[in-house]
Amino acid sequence: MKALVYEGPGQKAWKDVPDPTIQDPRDVIVKIDTTTICGTDLHILKGDVPAVTPGRILGHEGVGTVTEKGSSVNSFNVGDKVILSCVSADGSCSFCKDGLYSHCLGDEGQVGIGWIFGHLIDGTQAEYVRVPYADTSMYLLPEGVSAEHGTLLSDIFPTGFEMGVQYGRTKPGDVVAVIGAGPVGLAVIATAGLYGAAKIIAVDLDANRIQQARKFGATHGVNSGDADWKEQIMSQTDGWGVDVAVEAVGIPRTFEMCTEIVRPGGNVANVGVHGAPVSLDLPRLWIENIDISMGLVNTNTLSMLLKLIAEGKLPAEQFISHRYALHDMMTAYDTFSRAAETDALKVMLQA
Amino acid sequence: MKALVYEGPGQKAWKDVPDPTIQDPRDVIVKIDTTTICGTDLHILKGDVPAVTPGRILGHEGVGTVTEKGSSVNSFNVGDKVILSCVSADGSCSFCKDGLYSHCLGDEGQVGIGWIFGHLIDGTQAEYVRVPYADTSMYLLPEGVSAEHGTLLSDIFPTGFEMGVQYGRTKPGDVVAVIGAGPVGLAVIATAGLYGAAKIIAVDLDANRIQQARKFGATHGVNSGDADWKEQIMSQTDGWGVDVAVEAVGIPRTFEMCTEIVRPGGNVANVGVHGAPVSLDLPRLWIENIDISMGLVNTNTLSMLLKLIAEGKLPAEQFISHRYALHDMMTAYDTFSRAAETDALKVMLQA
Repeated sequence: MKALVYEGPGQKAWKDVPDPTIQDPRDVIVKIDTTTICGTDLHILKGDVPAVTPGRILGHEGVGTVTEKGSSVNSFNVGDKVILSCVSADGSCSFCKDGLYSHCLGDEGQVGIGWIFGHLIDGTQAEYVRVPYADTSMYLLPEGVSAEHGTLLSDIFPTGFEMGVQYGRTKPGDVVAVIGAGPVGLAVIATAGLYGAAKIIAVDLDANRIQQARKFGATHGVNSGDADWKEQIMSQTDGWGVDVAVEAVGIPRTFEMCTEIVRPGGNVANVGVHGAPVSLDLPRLWIENIDISMGLVNTNTLSMLLKLIAEGKLPAEQFISHRYALHDMMTAYDTFSRAAETDALKVMLQA
Repeated sequence: MKALVYEGPGQKAWKDVPDPTIQDPRDVIVKIDTTTICGTDLHILKGDVPAVTPGRILGHEGVGTVTEKGSSVNSFNVGDKVILSCVSADGSCSFCKDGLYSHCLGDEGQVGIGWIFGHLIDGTQAEYVRVPYADTSMYLLPEGVSAEHGTLLSDIFPTGFEMGVQYGRTKPGDVVAVIGAGPVGLAVIATAGLYGAAKIIAVDLDANRIQQARKFGATHGVNSGDADWKEQIMSQTDGWGVDVAVEAVGIPRTFEMCTEIVRPGGNVANVGVHGAPVSLDLPRLWIENIDISMGLVNTNTLSMLLKLIAEGKLPAEQFISHRYALHDMMTAYDTFSRAAETDALKVMLQA
């Protein structure tokens, strides 16, 4: 089969590789119908994720069709259309039983790390993929939900909702500011209303992204390049700051910005993946009663979000900026990696 | 009257000052029966809290008797024995209505800071104290609860419980590690069982304190000077770390220790007051799904803790290491400031 293979920092190829095979009775083989590219894939290609070794097939999002199943798979059959979660969960370890699938103790990949596709085992940017723990890591794609929309449930919608909205403890009436209106930030914006956010402020350096964010549910936009960016945000509150400040960029300055705009008793939800430590100003912050959260998505809200997408309650279509055939993978990467010029959000690849 | 007056860094005096007077209809004047000294007072004396200016009467804990009341005070009468909260709450601002008394917007002291006694207005280490917002900041001392035990409710018990146990989201079955077994750490240890902690590990450099912690409810003790301190803690878990790691010292290393022993999905509750920023290793921590909390006590659990003390359900008596007459304030400070030698916990001063 063909697959997108990581060949070391800065190097990738769409090339022939062996077809995957069942290795465990809990496995299935899925023929990929739709997959996409995540910002994390670009991090990997830069060499920022040393656990990914040359030869690894990338990708952790996708919808496909079951073509083969292991002997202990009960919930799926050959021919089923399925959504693959970016997190592989054995469903039986202590972390999985607590819903903390992100830290599954199963022995695929690395014990204690649930994100293994395109990271510690071969991923979804391929014609076929081996899916471990199929019963507990896949979801049937309902009729009426497209494969493209299903693919948005592999990672981006649950990440925005769980790591931004839920970890940020968003509650009715809240003012939520999202710093970084890229795909993940937009997923936070698109789901903050589920917990009753009263105002959702998109904060970005790019005027086009701020404008675009309104289509996803942002009620206000602030350009963080403006000298008075902070005052603009504060003016949408009672003067004491936002209830929830979501970091969706992954650099020290945007984390710091969150701590500057959050109100006493508020929450900073760090969604961005950081490459450098940040300085946490505890002498200033201890008296502010703020809470800082971070983490890897569990996708334990995937089923719930799927129901909302099925009912047209989430702006799924707006995420799709480009479409390519699966074998145009290299072109798709080029488009996605130049998002500032191409306005790429989610680039869909279809078999 | 006599009072303990801050006279600039390193300087204090027990001296004559004018008696306090009613300044607002919501005020009462309270004659202090019992007060105590907090670690925060020592920080102030070092000059670490620049908002405290020379001439300020220190102290934010105490039980006393109402001697005079303002015209709008409804809930208290002259002669009532009352517990003073370390946080003054007007009860009517938006933060107070949310129970976030620590950020009261009343105009005593500084708008948005609820801890004002011995900080922004004169405090309780005196023969008399003016108590603002009396109806919403004082609690009747029930018969059967001593003034000394009541004084422990001004700050230390609520701080340990709210900022350690509650902000740490302690739940039944949890393993809780408390780094720093000083008075506040012991208050965390003493209250962690209220939310069902299964194990409570006291971590300190001082073998005597670790031993003492068992009297407060610690089920295990670890000396953080041991080379294998981390392994000792981990051995009390399933190997993945503690559910709740409480920082009760206030230095960067102990904060870092908390992030090293907390399990995926766990909580770091920062109770210590820090004088320097800490480095937050987001590249390592983002994938751990940890939550970091911090803040100033609200004392919104004071009434609840008072009921438990009244029923003998909390180890109040064990906190009292020394007793002095109120006019022996300078000696009491000396004892408390040499706690490593004197084994001082709470030093009680009685009129």
